[in-house]
Order: sequence, then structure tokens, then C-alpha cells
Amino acid sequence: MPRAQGSTTVTIRRLSGAGAMEVCADLVATEEPLEIRVAGRSVAVVMRTPGHDRELAAGFLVTEGVLRRPDQVLDMVYCRAGGEPEENVLDVLLAPGAAVDFDRLTRHVFTSSSCGICSKASIAAIRAQFPAIASHSAPRRAVLASLPEALRAAQAGFDRTGGLHASALFTAEGVLINAREDVGRHNALDKVVGRAFLDGALPLAERILLVSGRVSFELMQKALGAGIPIVAAISAPSSAAVAFAQASGQTLVGFLRPDGTGGMRMNVYAGTVAD
Amino acid sequence: MPRAQGSTTVTIRRLSGAGAMEVCADLVATEEPLEIRVAGRSVAVVMRTPGHDRELAAGFLVTEGVLRRPDQVLDMVYCRAGGEPEENVLDVLLAPGAAVDFDRLTRHVFTSSSCGICSKASIAAIRAQFPAIASHSAPRRAVLASLPEALRAAQAGFDRTGGLHASALFTAEGVLINAREDVGRHNALDKVVGRAFLDGALPLAERILLVSGRVSFELMQKALGAGIPIVAAISAPSSAAVAFAQASGQTLVGFLRPDGTGGMRMNVYAGTVAD
Repeated sequence: MPRAQGSTTVTIRRLSGAGAMEVCADLVATEEPLEIRVAGRSVAVVMRTPGHDRELAAGFLVTEGVLRRPDQVLDMVYCRAGGEPEENVLDVLLAPGAAVDFDRLTRHVFTSSSCGICSKASIAAIRAQFPAIASHSAPRRAVLASLPEALRAAQAGFDRTGGLHASALFTAEGVLINAREDVGRHNALDKVVGRAFLDGALPLAERILLVSGRVSFELMQKALGAGIPIVAAISAPSSAAVAFAQASGQTLVGFLRPDGTGGMRMNVYAGTVAD
Repeated sequence: MPRAQGSTTVTIRRLSGAGAMEVCADLVATEEPLEIRVAGRSVAVVMRTPGHDRELAAGFLVTEGVLRRPDQVLDMVYCRAGGEPEENVLDVLLAPGAAVDFDRLTRHVFTSSSCGICSKASIAAIRAQFPAIASHSAPRRAVLASLPEALRAAQAGFDRTGGLHASALFTAEGVLINAREDVGRHNALDKVVGRAFLDGALPLAERILLVSGRVSFELMQKALGAGIPIVAAISAPSSAAVAFAQASGQTLVGFLRPDGTGGMRMNVYAGTVAD
């Protein structure tokens, strides 16, 4: 299947109403496995949309609490292994003297779950991995209202597959820092965080994260792992996301979308929004 | 936070256009951890919407390739552990003589990933866990077109949170067998499969699965684990879902939705649809 820029061309049969079957080409979101290694040791396989793999690997290791400073990373290199295409295995090489606690890594990888599945055997272990945010400025209402349009404008290769999630980081003034797309919404977030990590910009104090989809417990946890105080979403949060935001001192805004009368609406689930 | 029937009431501040802030009650999808144990041994923590937990645990263990026959299960009981509410820990007790390969269990749990995250260290291990489907009847176009409306009609407590996914099983004639909702789309599928498993109805030959959201690689893999030959989705599949369906002999239909002119449209990504 040919692929480019996050989408793959497939041949489908399209049916509409009572019309005849039409054979045509269609774009679907590309989803392929990425095996993440640390110092040659396999730690996770992530189903992701290829592209920005180094950011994804770095962001994943940051939001899982393993990597803390960019100087811990010497390089990230693709490697050929087990008959897989080379671009599906990425090894994070550690700087001399940089120590990673593999027990912690294992615990966190199992704890993670874009999916809701963690192999971690106890519930207590999935709570409170990162310290709460002490304080942050309330985001401004007009700034929040401007974010969805800014994200759309920035997506050069705007999702034509209907299958990609987007995640974007903004300044408190609403200036876009970077945006990423992925078939997995947690991957899109990890790519954004990974970019900031590699730029030495963590923790992301006073930044605003915008996500295209729903907000789960794990998404809030990953945002906290990167020090992000404000999360806004086009869609709905879960009860655990709301409770987590309240407990961690984060601001959580959902249903940030047009109100049908030319304005924008939003629901504030945790924290406050300034006029 | 009070909760009932999959949703939790929270107090929010709602902003619309340039209007004043309005404090009101809102419903969000309930998301809480469920620790699944097998014979007292913790094997996974799933972030799920409470309700139908036994079905979820059974379905999860089936689609991960651990449980095969309902007579392997003696009972499933909630247990109090680690200060968690009792309803968040569920132990699957095995029948006398029933053997579960915990190595396989571990492998599969790590392989799984509603999220796209598998702790399994190699990519090869996430491919081809279940045998392909030898053959099945092509679903009828008119039947497929009727499914979304049938699902909506069946959802008594239709999602008012904007945060729940639905999964439903139908006969080849389009008769609804059961439908489940969950904050995690893989959980909704596991609940449907778990119900069928407990009813002794596996493998689900000639059945049609309808899912409300997108179709990932893992969703197709879980469907195959339950023997489901036909998967239809309201939304888009990923490239890996299409490739998996083609390789496993499954029929995959996406974008099953109104075509805007009073009819229904659908894209056939794998297999065939009969007139």
C-alpha cells in the first residue's frame, strides 16, 4: 500500500444510496508499529502513524517518567531487526553516564495506556506519578476561543482520512508552537511533548495544549508529566480526566467549538478561565 | 462525583459566545480503573466505564487469547484490595482443572493495546495471534445500511456525554444481539464479546460487529479473536486495520453513515458486500 504524509492509498468499493458500486482509490490513516528501544533494550511497541518518530519516542519516555533532560539522550537511531522495515525500530542511545531506571521504565510502560490497558497489576500505581502543578495563570477566554481555528490553519496536510488525531501546543497568547497528527491521540501528544523536550523547553509552564478528540485520564497524566498546566479539547473529557485535573491543579476545558451562532462555546471542568 | 449508568455529574462553568459564565451541572462519561485478576493474580488494569464488568473481564481474556471456553470459568467476584472500592477489582476464578498459561497471558496483555502501546518487546509478536477466517457469507448491503439506526434505537441510555463509544453485535439478517457502551472503544467490544462468550456463542461465525468510532489494528485483532468475520464502522479504519482484515479473511466496511440524500453510504475496504 503506497503511503505518504500520514495517509495510505487503498482501493475500495464505494456504495452510496441505491447507486451502483464504484471502485476507487481512498486515503486511510497510516498505522504501523514502532518498537521503542532504550540502549538496545526493547521497552514498548506503539501503533503509530509514521513520521516524527524521534519526537514520539522521546515524548513517550518523558510522559512515562523515564527521561527527564535532553542531555540524557546521545542519539536516536533506526535499526534493522527481526525482518521488520528499518524505520519501525528506533533505539534511544543514552549519553555516557546517563542512567535510566529500567524498573521504573517497566512500571511506567505497563502503567501507561492510551488504551485504558495497563499491565501494571495495581490501581494505586497509576495514580499520582507526577507532582501537581503549584500554580499557573488562568488562560484567557478569547485566546482559548481562537485555538481550534489556529490549529486547522497550521495543519498543512490536514487530515483527509477522517482517522487522525491532532495535538498542538500554544503560548498563553495563543501563538502556535507546534502541532502533530497521529492515528493515536496519545501519540500525537507525545510527539508534541517530544519536540519540546528535544528543544529543551520542558517543563511546559504557562503553555496550553489543544487536543482534537476526547480527553481521558491518561491524556491528563501525560500532560502533567510534561508540566502542561492547561488542556483544552474540541470534544468531551471523562470523569477520571476531570478528577485528575482538579487534583493536579490543571485547567481543563472541553467542548471548545463553535456555538452555532458565530461565537465559540466551551465548558470549564477544572481551574478557571479569565475574561 | 455522583454517577449512574455510565455517566457522572460534574459542576462546570459554561461559556458561550460573548455571553456571561453560567454555572451548571453537566454529564461526563464515567472512567474508572478495573483491575482484572485471574485466580487471584493481577493481570491488567483497564480504564473503563463501570457496568458489565464481568463481560468486560471475560471478553478481554478471550480477545487476548487466554480464555477459550466458558467452562474454564468458575465464577467472577469483586474483591476489596488496597483501599480501592470493591467494584474496581474483579477476580476471575478458574474451574477445577482449568489451566491458564500465565506466560501466554502476560504476553498477550502486553501485546494488547487499545492505545497502541504494547509492552511486548517485538513487533513480530503482535501479528497473527489467531487463525484467519476460512470463509463467510458476504453481508447484504441493505442489512448493513440498517445497522446504525438499529444501534441508536437500542441504546436506552444513549450517550449524553459525547464521550462514550458503542459496539454492537448483529445477526446476518441485521437483528441486534447485544450492544454495549464504554469510554474505551476496545472495552465496548470486549463487553460484547464477553457476553457472547458467557452465553456459549463463540466463535461468532456469520455475525456482524458494528462499532461507533474508528477501526484500529487492535480492534480487528480482537474481533478475529472472537471469530467475528464482518466488522462495520461509522467512522474510518486505519491502514493496519485494512491490511489485517485482508490478511485474516475478514470483511471491513467503514464510513457506514447517511449519504446526505436520504440513503446510506459505505466504503468496503476488505471482503465483499452482496446486493
